[in-house]
Amino acid sequence: MTTNPTHRFDHRKYRPGPVVDLPNRQWPGRTIQQAPIWASVDLRDGNQALLEPMDVTQKRRFWDLLIRLGFKEIEVGFPAASQPDFDFVRWLIEEDRIPADVTVQVLVQAREDLIRRTFEALVGARQAIVHVYNSTSPVQRDWVFGQDREGIKTIARQGAHWVQQGARDYPETRWTFQYSPESFTATEPDYALEVCEAVLDVWQPTPENPCIINLPATVEVATPNVFADQVEWFSTHVSRRAGVILSVHTHNDRGGAVAAAELALLAGADRVEGTLLGNGERTGNADLLTLAMNLYSQGIDPRLDLSDPDEIIRVCTDCTGLTVHPRHPWVGELVYTAFSGSHQDAIRKCLSRQTDDQPWQVAYLPIDPADLGRDYQAVIRVNSQSGKGGVAFVLERDYGLVLPRWMQTELAPLVQQASERRGGEMDPASIHALFRARFIADDPQWLLGYRLDRNGHDVIEARIGDRSGERILRGEGDGAIAAFVAAWTAWSGKRLRILDYQEHAIGEGTDAEAAAYVQLDVEGARITGAAIDRDTVAASLRAVLSAVNRQGRA
Amino acid sequence: MTTNPTHRFDHRKYRPGPVVDLPNRQWPGRTIQQAPIWASVDLRDGNQALLEPMDVTQKRRFWDLLIRLGFKEIEVGFPAASQPDFDFVRWLIEEDRIPADVTVQVLVQAREDLIRRTFEALVGARQAIVHVYNSTSPVQRDWVFGQDREGIKTIARQGAHWVQQGARDYPETRWTFQYSPESFTATEPDYALEVCEAVLDVWQPTPENPCIINLPATVEVATPNVFADQVEWFSTHVSRRAGVILSVHTHNDRGGAVAAAELALLAGADRVEGTLLGNGERTGNADLLTLAMNLYSQGIDPRLDLSDPDEIIRVCTDCTGLTVHPRHPWVGELVYTAFSGSHQDAIRKCLSRQTDDQPWQVAYLPIDPADLGRDYQAVIRVNSQSGKGGVAFVLERDYGLVLPRWMQTELAPLVQQASERRGGEMDPASIHALFRARFIADDPQWLLGYRLDRNGHDVIEARIGDRSGERILRGEGDGAIAAFVAAWTAWSGKRLRILDYQEHAIGEGTDAEAAAYVQLDVEGARITGAAIDRDTVAASLRAVLSAVNRQGRA
Repeated sequence: MTTNPTHRFDHRKYRPGPVVDLPNRQWPGRTIQQAPIWASVDLRDGNQALLEPMDVTQKRRFWDLLIRLGFKEIEVGFPAASQPDFDFVRWLIEEDRIPADVTVQVLVQAREDLIRRTFEALVGARQAIVHVYNSTSPVQRDWVFGQDREGIKTIARQGAHWVQQGARDYPETRWTFQYSPESFTATEPDYALEVCEAVLDVWQPTPENPCIINLPATVEVATPNVFADQVEWFSTHVSRRAGVILSVHTHNDRGGAVAAAELALLAGADRVEGTLLGNGERTGNADLLTLAMNLYSQGIDPRLDLSDPDEIIRVCTDCTGLTVHPRHPWVGELVYTAFSGSHQDAIRKCLSRQTDDQPWQVAYLPIDPADLGRDYQAVIRVNSQSGKGGVAFVLERDYGLVLPRWMQTELAPLVQQASERRGGEMDPASIHALFRARFIADDPQWLLGYRLDRNGHDVIEARIGDRSGERILRGEGDGAIAAFVAAWTAWSGKRLRILDYQEHAIGEGTDAEAAAYVQLDVEGARITGAAIDRDTVAASLRAVLSAVNRQGRA
Repeated sequence: MTTNPTHRFDHRKYRPGPVVDLPNRQWPGRTIQQAPIWASVDLRDGNQALLEPMDVTQKRRFWDLLIRLGFKEIEVGFPAASQPDFDFVRWLIEEDRIPADVTVQVLVQAREDLIRRTFEALVGARQAIVHVYNSTSPVQRDWVFGQDREGIKTIARQGAHWVQQGARDYPETRWTFQYSPESFTATEPDYALEVCEAVLDVWQPTPENPCIINLPATVEVATPNVFADQVEWFSTHVSRRAGVILSVHTHNDRGGAVAAAELALLAGADRVEGTLLGNGERTGNADLLTLAMNLYSQGIDPRLDLSDPDEIIRVCTDCTGLTVHPRHPWVGELVYTAFSGSHQDAIRKCLSRQTDDQPWQVAYLPIDPADLGRDYQAVIRVNSQSGKGGVAFVLERDYGLVLPRWMQTELAPLVQQASERRGGEMDPASIHALFRARFIADDPQWLLGYRLDRNGHDVIEARIGDRSGERILRGEGDGAIAAFVAAWTAWSGKRLRILDYQEHAIGEGTDAEAAAYVQLDVEGARITGAAIDRDTVAASLRAVLSAVNRQGRA
């Protein structure tokens, strides 16, 4: 045994896996039209890959979750090889925990004693899938089992026979047979088919009494299109196709388990085995949650209720001890987050346009986070990579402040600099504080009160305080702000001109406040100011005062 | 803005993304023959997606890692939008940190002021890629930019022009231009091409002076075959194809970033942008480490030195704050681990057959873990899901004990039960303790010494102790064990027969010990025993004694 190999990084010792010549392949031209039959293997493949396999309580909790999500086929273990698995199956049956429309599935090797024990585990089940397998790839034949092609085929045929025999011994259960040529992707396609045909010869499935043939990518050994070719070749060459439910079971060794399952569906597969969040041997299985959400996001009914992913994550992490990566598709904590300014800007604009009666089309958000119970709090977060869009979004979302674009442009670099100094995310309160410190200035002069006379023409008397006391400024104009600017100009002798002005209510009803934003030309300098006040006129006058106060400081 | 949407799980509000009609697609029939041009966007796309963007020290450390791994094109930031990015580019250039064969790339929007600032950041670079982009999808045109097709195309054309102008202003640098129609996957393919053609009309690339056209799956919106179709359609329709380096940049929204990049390579892409371990906006980018290892495992030179993934993980996690999932392809901590008995058995058998002069073909291990600096310690771990293979593997690996199959079969269920009681992994020491407690019995009788006379026939005198004292047993036979069995039989009056016997050395040289395993028939009962001793004869005699001691207890 090579227990102390020389560590060397050299690609030349590897060879590509087998491919099929399939010039007339049809799958690339198809699209997925409906959800496949989902089969959860969390309690078997998932469980056998854990440092600490689930205890009885965890298994029951996981089972309950799978039922709630809507799984109808659930592989619950390997009862002939594991006493806890055997006991769990007995518990499910004896405690009547299997809903009438749910079928349990159990795995077993093609060995007579194990198959007999498997049927004992299932006594009393309304219906069940007995999943028998043996390995078929060259290395498994030559190095592991020491059998030639005929020998391996005989193992499969005998397994099929023993399963059939077991079913005859327990006729009160509605049985479905399943066979997997394990290591299918590393097996010569014609030989894998030959073995499956030997099994089908025993089982003689019909459309009324179909069996399941499951093609496992036990180890993912090629790009996912190769698996699709293998599946299409199999699907179009297998006899009794109408009596076969074609299933796939992909692993993620090359990061392609989800893609391989999707392309296999295009290639003719009817059923997908996988796990929640992709737990399973080594790199894991196809993540059924991702597969289902992929369908969902294309307008296809996923036939699973995934509306509470936080609960799914809670149960899975509690039971498996594995965490969910923050970038895990659809449900990771960073998945609906945008830091980049241009992304934030686009999201903000799209959200303001999106209505409930249109198909969803928000840039950078493939689905509405609300569908998965996520709020928008996390969507736009601000750090040094963010621009005015994110800053504006946060101020509007958390403080009801709708800044004019020219004020966003002035504020954003300040936020960016503060974030750079801090080296991390800027929380909304800090952004709000920066906004107030920059644009709202009640010093050195502040508004004490005003009287506004609106009789055709606006006449204002504004009472202004400063450190030396107070004074009354009088002016006239077309509107309160114009009148106030005229009053201020007359008093100060400075040229003052309104370039832009915006005002909006914050909140509703009698508690509402007004936010005002002004952009002034003061003696040729462009200067901005803002104010918030219960009174709309006071807000606008104070915004002008903020601007001139700021100009005075500069 | 929909800030308080009703939480509802309803697929009907989504529509599928655009597809291309491509009946004569060629990509599904191809295989990847060589590594593409790799372009790391860790320091830009990756960095802009972090809660805490990298500080200067982290950026430098990440840069050094990328150089060590062998990246030749590295996007380092968005210098016109971020002062830290600007400063980092300046540091690279002024401190001469860019090797002669490495090209830095910087991103910039198609805006004149930003492009000008970008060229300022790059002053003095030997060579550089200026990557200009604008968004082209319908929702970006209509809702974000408020521009029609012509307007958006004009933005691209102007951007191309400003980039060309900037290059003319700084002729001492060897410039490569790159354009991305951002949101390409959500853009009508013919329109995306039209925009790119407008850019190519400005740049007039040639095979001698090519430019890069980068097709981003800014958001992954379809199965990866659809992206491949889009890329092949683009590749076969774009003018000046020989002057275009066709690049792809995939995101992982549907878990297909790696697959999409791979199928895009089949479809004609020359270059892949991505990140180490898949960091990036939302669900992340294509993981270049996985892509490269996928090639490696098929015998293709990945053109990156990934021989020390632990160092890669260390730098990435330190710089990004993101952990690596234990099931991450190729490098996760559980990736080369097998708990399942049948997997362990197959791995053990294959490892014993695999030699250095053959292509690698070990079941369940797509590559030799040693290539990535991983040892075999973690490959086979034992818990309640494991069988005799794993138990045997651990005892051999860690204690040098090569148990006969009949002893493995007896030990494995004990380990399984102990693991079930414990609810977790069985460490090697516990397995070893179980082995000793079960098979090695020096009570109620033990070997005190022996004299062996080998003159044609073996005659033994064994001195046996028990609680009442000691006695000498004498016997003859063909070999020491046969003589000892004869002696024992004569003394005890019990029928004793050797069914099987195995012995092997543990370790080498003068320190070596011997392990002996016997299977006896004692009065019709099959009973096993083992012993370890510095002396090979003593080991075998004690193994027999272990068996009879055990039988006496039963």
